[in-house]
Amino acid sequence: MTTKLDIAKGWLPRYTGMPIDDFGDYVLLTNFAFYVQKFGEQFGCEVHGVGRPMQAATNSDGVSIVNFGIGSPNAAIIMDLLTARAPKGVLFLGKCGGLKHTTEIGHFILPIAAIRGEGTSDDYFPPEVPALPSFKLHKFVSERIVQRGLDYRTGVIYTTNRRVWEHDEDFKQRLHDVTAIGIDMETATIFIVGHKNEISRGGSCSSRTCPSRPMASKPKRVTHG
Amino acid sequence: MTTKLDIAKGWLPRYTGMPIDDFGDYVLLTNFAFYVQKFGEQFGCEVHGVGRPMQAATNSDGVSIVNFGIGSPNAAIIMDLLTARAPKGVLFLGKCGGLKHTTEIGHFILPIAAIRGEGTSDDYFPPEVPALPSFKLHKFVSERIVQRGLDYRTGVIYTTNRRVWEHDEDFKQRLHDVTAIGIDMETATIFIVGHKNEISRGGSCSSRTCPSRPMASKPKRVTHG
Amino acid sequence: MTTKLDIAKGWLPRYTGMPIDDFGDYVLLTNFAFYVQKFGEQFGCEVHGVGRPMQAATNSDGVSIVNFGIGSPNAAIIMDLLTARAPKGVLFLGKCGGLKHTTEIGHFILPIAAIRGEGTSDDYFPPEVPALPSFKLHKFVSERIVQRGLDYRTGVIYTTNRRVWEHDEDFKQRLHDVTAIGIDMETATIFIVGHKNEISRGGSCSSRTCPSRPMASKPKRVTHG
Repeated sequence: MTTKLDIAKGWLPRYTGMPIDDFGDYVLLTNFAFYVQKFGEQFGCEVHGVGRPMQAATNSDGVSIVNFGIGSPNAAIIMDLLTARAPKGVLFLGKCGGLKHTTEIGHFILPIAAIRGEGTSDDYFPPEVPALPSFKLHKFVSERIVQRGLDYRTGVIYTTNRRVWEHDEDFKQRLHDVTAIGIDMETATIFIVGHKNEISRGGSCSSRTCPSRPMASKPKRVTHG
Repeated sequence: MTTKLDIAKGWLPRYTGMPIDDFGDYVLLTNFAFYVQKFGEQFGCEVHGVGRPMQAATNSDGVSIVNFGIGSPNAAIIMDLLTARAPKGVLFLGKCGGLKHTTEIGHFILPIAAIRGEGTSDDYFPPEVPALPSFKLHKFVSERIVQRGLDYRTGVIYTTNRRVWEHDEDFKQRLHDVTAIGIDMETATIFIVGHKNEISRGGSCSSRTCPSRPMASKPKRVTHG
Repeated sequence: MTTKLDIAKGWLPRYTGMPIDDFGDYVLLTNFAFYVQKFGEQFGCEVHGVGRPMQAATNSDGVSIVNFGIGSPNAAIIMDLLTARAPKGVLFLGKCGGLKHTTEIGHFILPIAAIRGEGTSDDYFPPEVPALPSFKLHKFVSERIVQRGLDYRTGVIYTTNRRVWEHDEDFKQRLHDVTAIGIDMETATIFIVGHKNEISRGGSCSSRTCPSRPMASKPKRVTHG
């Protein structure tokens, strides 16, 4: 019988064009082919998968980067396929729509949890299972950001399958009601599918858009880990 | 106030790299950049959006093609963004996993409806609203296939956000129980978001995989429209 | 062991008073004894089943008509019992409450699908299986209507077990939200039980009541098939 692992082993190289053994212990996930290309240039390593659904590269330190595309189903695919390699940690470098203050744009947001507004993760765990990063990975990333003299915001990301919603006042009210710090299309899925597949995972978003509706409460600004 | 149309008008060119006025009255949707490239070569027309999330091209007959990527959120995005152009018809050229007989591989499947297993469409209509192609477009496509001397299968497609499920016997039993002819990741979303946005839409899948579990009932073979 | 077919063979004549062999290849379904009687008068054929739960008649062209009564359970019964005869096509001539514009009253509505608000069909297929007419029968009926110089509306019928709901504003809002063109008590059941029993089926309703709440969007008027 075909197991999930069999499928993942067959498909990871097919989707990314990179052999399984080329993947490192640590994997960065991005939504942009451009980031994989920059990574390849910066570390002088080969970019695989051009013309395939996903692109990937690994540097000499054993850090891989994968562009898995946009949206929760693609996030679920890569988190399933990575079981073929069983990495020690997966960090999603995303972008999110900031939902609090306009001054927050460009800041790092480290999600401490994500709201499962995307449905995709329901195929992995019942809806009441919270979507969480692995604590140690989360802590590690937060410490590194502070060591670099940067600061970050922390809070809950709302993950949705909708992209065109800025006109929808009811939806924006909903985002406000659930006190989300930002909205994106992948974080909850990465956390839940990572949990299912026992992969350590974390997220780091940079806030990209102005909130059309500044929220009452200020997100927590953290200057020490 | 920003309307949905405002957003779509801003984002359609940003996502595809193609100006709104370059879109034709009829739009083909595909999951593969390669198909847009082939379309450009065949009709000698410019391919826009390389390096962007979507690629697009329009031939001299006013037919456009867009690669919107993979998965239901991306399907929802393009069906929302196309409101900026209000095309007369949108046809999804997809691939689906065949769920009936191995002999069906490579055949056209024209979905007469799709099961909304993807969640994404729930952001547009309550789950009991059936995901349907536009009758006239469906009829037109079926007639054209027959005129070309080809035949097709018709039935209901199951749309899911899962990609790695071939190992999951419960899920496969479910697909059997709901009598789906095939499984894909976009058709239900395209039908429902098209309905919401009042865009005529249809689907045509080619069957790509062997069913691991042949189904009792044979899909309907149609040799005249 | 008694099979479903055994039961159907025993009960179809008992319910309708008409021998199985008297049923034609094509069956019209109605909710009114009066229609069977008119059919008998028009074609000079015997009306069976007077005093029984259902009445039936067959004309010399091999077209039968059955009054199966009202409601989804009766619709399920007749669609099960007809397996005794395995007709080539079954067309439901129903009435529905028009949910769009008052001007639509008396027009033909050809349901392209039905919402399964009746529960009865859940005994046959899981709720996510869409309730659909057979494409070819639907197409045939639409072409015949147009050939007669009539036109029709097409859309989705909401099938319910409720008869007294006109006072219920929440329910009416729900009907609006799901964009139903009309409401009836049998169509979804006929479609789903027909699907289960592999009987080609279609529906044609005439719109009977004023909507208490005219809807924003006009149903599609179709003047060519």
